[in-house]
Amino acid sequence: MLQGVFAAVLTPMREDLSVDRAAYAAHCRRLLDEGAHGLAIFGTTGEANSLSVAERVSAWDDLVADGIPADALLPGTGACALPDAVDLARAALDVGAPGVLALPPFYYKGVSDDGLFRFFAELIERVGDDRLRLFLYHIPPMAQVGFTPELIGRLLDAYPGVVAGTKDSAGDAARIERLCREFPDLTVFAGSERFLLDTLRWGGDGCISATCNVTAAQSRRVYDLWAANDPAADAEQASLTEARTFLEGFPPIPALKAIMRARTGDDVWANLRPPLDALADPTALLARVANHGL
Amino acid sequence: MLQGVFAAVLTPMREDLSVDRAAYAAHCRRLLDEGAHGLAIFGTTGEANSLSVAERVSAWDDLVADGIPADALLPGTGACALPDAVDLARAALDVGAPGVLALPPFYYKGVSDDGLFRFFAELIERVGDDRLRLFLYHIPPMAQVGFTPELIGRLLDAYPGVVAGTKDSAGDAARIERLCREFPDLTVFAGSERFLLDTLRWGGDGCISATCNVTAAQSRRVYDLWAANDPAADAEQASLTEARTFLEGFPPIPALKAIMRARTGDDVWANLRPPLDALADPTALLARVANHGL
Repeated sequence: MLQGVFAAVLTPMREDLSVDRAAYAAHCRRLLDEGAHGLAIFGTTGEANSLSVAERVSAWDDLVADGIPADALLPGTGACALPDAVDLARAALDVGAPGVLALPPFYYKGVSDDGLFRFFAELIERVGDDRLRLFLYHIPPMAQVGFTPELIGRLLDAYPGVVAGTKDSAGDAARIERLCREFPDLTVFAGSERFLLDTLRWGGDGCISATCNVTAAQSRRVYDLWAANDPAADAEQASLTEARTFLEGFPPIPALKAIMRARTGDDVWANLRPPLDALADPTALLARVANHGL
Repeated sequence: MLQGVFAAVLTPMREDLSVDRAAYAAHCRRLLDEGAHGLAIFGTTGEANSLSVAERVSAWDDLVADGIPADALLPGTGACALPDAVDLARAALDVGAPGVLALPPFYYKGVSDDGLFRFFAELIERVGDDRLRLFLYHIPPMAQVGFTPELIGRLLDAYPGVVAGTKDSAGDAARIERLCREFPDLTVFAGSERFLLDTLRWGGDGCISATCNVTAAQSRRVYDLWAANDPAADAEQASLTEARTFLEGFPPIPALKAIMRARTGDDVWANLRPPLDALADPTALLARVANHGL
């Protein structure tokens, strides 16, 4: 079962914009060492939609070959085109990932719940593998298209066991609480570690967060204190929530890459696939990170 | 040079959601016979983003093999991932298309003109073929990400000849007029035939429109009257603009497919890739189409 603190892993890229295999494995290893329970690779933070299907599959095959445990991976397999979503989900199963994180098809806007239901029904049936554990990736600020609670309920009823969980990145605590309470069988990850303790207390399962590239250790402390029923969990969460504000006002992916570049001294972190730009001047950001003790 | 009336071609699909090769070629042939100068295949109307790269390439290779002239094709080659956009543009050149219609990468929102410039610069340089003629596909209601006039100007300055044109589907006449007047070297297609005559008079080049799947003949009459300096062009445009309202209140792609199904009697037009749904009941739509004499 997937539970705990998952980093939405950044993807390091060479100057030619190919994935840097060594830096990627090293970064994943570091996040696990810092305390992340798992690695949500190739989500929004991982620039997944800027990579082809073949690039994503090859990169996660390499990760496992390089010693990152497959059972710690929750690969993003979202795509607008059903055949791409099927190929990605199958490849994730092949590499041994215990679940996949799937965006809704995000090109057409204003689509119906019926249309989205049909997309995921076709996906599940075409993958045709009982091992599939599908996590619904709700991130309306980016995808615009999202999952209503009614749609989640319909999918759970139709494909119990296969529809396994969700990552909720709507930034809405009330929605996360509703999902935890309404769907006890659904694994619920908050899309930010600021909701980590609340989510766990509502019966949810953890967080999958971009900022966990930097806050994995502190997020893990919150989780462990909660798991131990230690009342210090609240203070640790408050401190984590405060620390996480280091990112406010900065574009998240460029800023997080700039921090990794400063930490590792590796210029591979200077590169982003267009349309994303590198941060022009990281001075203010790095000062703020230091001030937060991160 | 590309000019005139282009249909944004629907893609007929079998029940298993694969492209129906015979129906696709027949539909393209019919549109050319009705008077379309060209065929914008695999745009928004063609459900392009619901098909994989391989499916799109194979379908347009089949079209040309089935006798549709390659020089009438303006294939959509938009993709969020640079390698996909490169592969699609190369394949379109290989099949002999005189231009390609490229969406901006549309997953990340709020991206900068610098980032989009870099995407298209990388695309052009990676395709590395002097025959490339790039048409910038501006459709903010769907892609959310779009082309500012400043970005279009920067791309034209950096890649004259290669950056060849635009399809403007913002629904804003003033913007189309501005592009026509500000960039005389840019081939400007309005995204709707309701702007056809105005666009031609502003120095633009025509229209690329979903409704031209139904209005190709009448749109062509407007073009021909304009080309002949015939003052009857205004009345014909007014009639076309009025006729085009048949679609109002209906979801465009399902409605257009329902019309093609009624016209051809071929059930292949009942199928759409999810997340799009077929029209539940086309009765009111078909009555309206008949009332408009289409």
